[in-house]
Amino acid sequence: MIIDCHGHFTTAPKALGEWRERQIRAFGEGVRVRPDELEITDGEIREAVGDGQLRLQNERGTDLTVFSPGAGKMAHHHGDERTSLDWSRVANDLIGRVCGLFPDRFAGVCQLPQSPGGALETSIRNSVEELERCVEDLGFVGCLLNPDPSDGFYQAPPLTDKVYYPLYEKMVELDVPAMIHVAMSRNDALQGTCAHYLAGDTAAFMQLCTSNLFEDFPELRLVIPHGGGAVPYHWGRYRGFMQDKGLPPLEEAVLGNVFFDTCVYHRRGLELLLDVVPAENVLFASEMIGAVRGVDPETGRNFDDVKFLLDGIDMTDVDREAVYGGNAQRVFSRLKSRGVAK
Amino acid sequence: MIIDCHGHFTTAPKALGEWRERQIRAFGEGVRVRPDELEITDGEIREAVGDGQLRLQNERGTDLTVFSPGAGKMAHHHGDERTSLDWSRVANDLIGRVCGLFPDRFAGVCQLPQSPGGALETSIRNSVEELERCVEDLGFVGCLLNPDPSDGFYQAPPLTDKVYYPLYEKMVELDVPAMIHVAMSRNDALQGTCAHYLAGDTAAFMQLCTSNLFEDFPELRLVIPHGGGAVPYHWGRYRGFMQDKGLPPLEEAVLGNVFFDTCVYHRRGLELLLDVVPAENVLFASEMIGAVRGVDPETGRNFDDVKFLLDGIDMTDVDREAVYGGNAQRVFSRLKSRGVAK
Repeated sequence: MIIDCHGHFTTAPKALGEWRERQIRAFGEGVRVRPDELEITDGEIREAVGDGQLRLQNERGTDLTVFSPGAGKMAHHHGDERTSLDWSRVANDLIGRVCGLFPDRFAGVCQLPQSPGGALETSIRNSVEELERCVEDLGFVGCLLNPDPSDGFYQAPPLTDKVYYPLYEKMVELDVPAMIHVAMSRNDALQGTCAHYLAGDTAAFMQLCTSNLFEDFPELRLVIPHGGGAVPYHWGRYRGFMQDKGLPPLEEAVLGNVFFDTCVYHRRGLELLLDVVPAENVLFASEMIGAVRGVDPETGRNFDDVKFLLDGIDMTDVDREAVYGGNAQRVFSRLKSRGVAK
Repeated sequence: MIIDCHGHFTTAPKALGEWRERQIRAFGEGVRVRPDELEITDGEIREAVGDGQLRLQNERGTDLTVFSPGAGKMAHHHGDERTSLDWSRVANDLIGRVCGLFPDRFAGVCQLPQSPGGALETSIRNSVEELERCVEDLGFVGCLLNPDPSDGFYQAPPLTDKVYYPLYEKMVELDVPAMIHVAMSRNDALQGTCAHYLAGDTAAFMQLCTSNLFEDFPELRLVIPHGGGAVPYHWGRYRGFMQDKGLPPLEEAVLGNVFFDTCVYHRRGLELLLDVVPAENVLFASEMIGAVRGVDPETGRNFDDVKFLLDGIDMTDVDREAVYGGNAQRVFSRLKSRGVAK
């Protein structure tokens, strides 16, 4: 079974974005837009995924996509905690409907109603409730955790700060992982998909390396997307840093709890990822339909057709099974109770 | 001739750091510490590099190091423009003395008196003057340009902003490149050497990709250190992004002006760098003595003995000559007038 652990609903019906724009505008005017003001029909949902994700799943041979709201569009800096909570419910409910319509092809991952600055702590308490709702009521299998709800200015404490602990307690209780994923960048110095995303991944990994988080939560599972940002390319730097500081080796310090996806859009990058990171820590993903949509003239295939690239890389059968789906079933363990495990 | 294009004076005599601490403390008390209050003898300088950089140059077979003040210690957020200017002069003068004592082994690169926030513009004007002083009076061959003088919060405009243009004009006039290098991080969420450094490299590359800077300055040369941050590992993402946006291919858009160093501390990372980036854009460097100081148990050699790692990688003779020194002589073109070119 081939599981793409990183897909966003970037093709959502236009009404979703319009609702969000009205919500942001209304907040500026001191009013709220109600979540139930959004109207999207099942037909519109079928159309939105039918010619997008579903078609590509079929063409590329992916069985299931772990599916979340558009990451950039989480844009946690807007409004207040209530803004973020309403928006998360709206976005997550829509993911829930996609998964309800196509239960064999999509498993839900929710965005969390995070907020930056003084609202962080309250927003994490709200996130605990929203996570519980999404997992228990909507059957979701994980969440997206944004390490920078300021959206490009890195003003939150590290993810290892105690302010996040109620969320980690709930994740462990529900047995769900988080994918650590920044949202948009509103910082002109940090372009979104090719700078902020990778910076966020790299920063988060280092936060994890230099903390005791996994002593406090030995069961916690975190996925770092985009092939781990800069991390595998600089694996020697991280190994050397840990050794210099008298910290345990990376394998011991983080690889029991931290996983990387394969959203790396060229063969050489994927080969490096698979060479330096143990196969049991790598999860197939394509970020589809996502950051890069065109066809690579060097391969004649879409840049984000990662399955095609991985198919061309030498791996043992055991490793391939793990990377293509086995690891995802272990990390997103609720996939099993959803009945999608083989 | 083997040229390490990225070395910092991390082993500077203690008096330097003590002067800087007094300067920062004094600023808080509304007074200034004079640059001439720093006293360091030639003997102390000889000792500081003799058992450090010089010994390692000899052991590892490096002829010349392009040498700059400690990057983290630039810490541009402290004090005001004058603080940064005094500190830059002190730090650069010391580099000038190292180069004066060992002219065949070190060529100077200066730190710039940048400052964040409202002081940015004035600080860039000061940087123009300090660059001119260092190149014309001290014989330096380049400068370090910090894309984030806020030291970890990314509050400056992109490096392509017109505020930096007077500096680029002077660089072109003097025919010197800049290495784009952040300083310390004072942000708990962004560890310095393994997160902020790589995030800064990656962010800067993306700023360059999405601008017309090199149309305005076709002669400008910029080196992105630490193997280009996350960039070569995600080469496909960048190629795809440029194509999606209708921008020219990377080769055309930036590779006439942008170069990567080899500060990547494991063989697999270096292989990837050399596979995806044309050899003429890669400059040997080890960041020695720098971020990672220990011995890699997998090789029995220091993590930052990049020369040893590169020696073990297949390259044509032409590429090896370019990467080991030829490119550095082209990019840091003033090395030639210093008489160190072969």
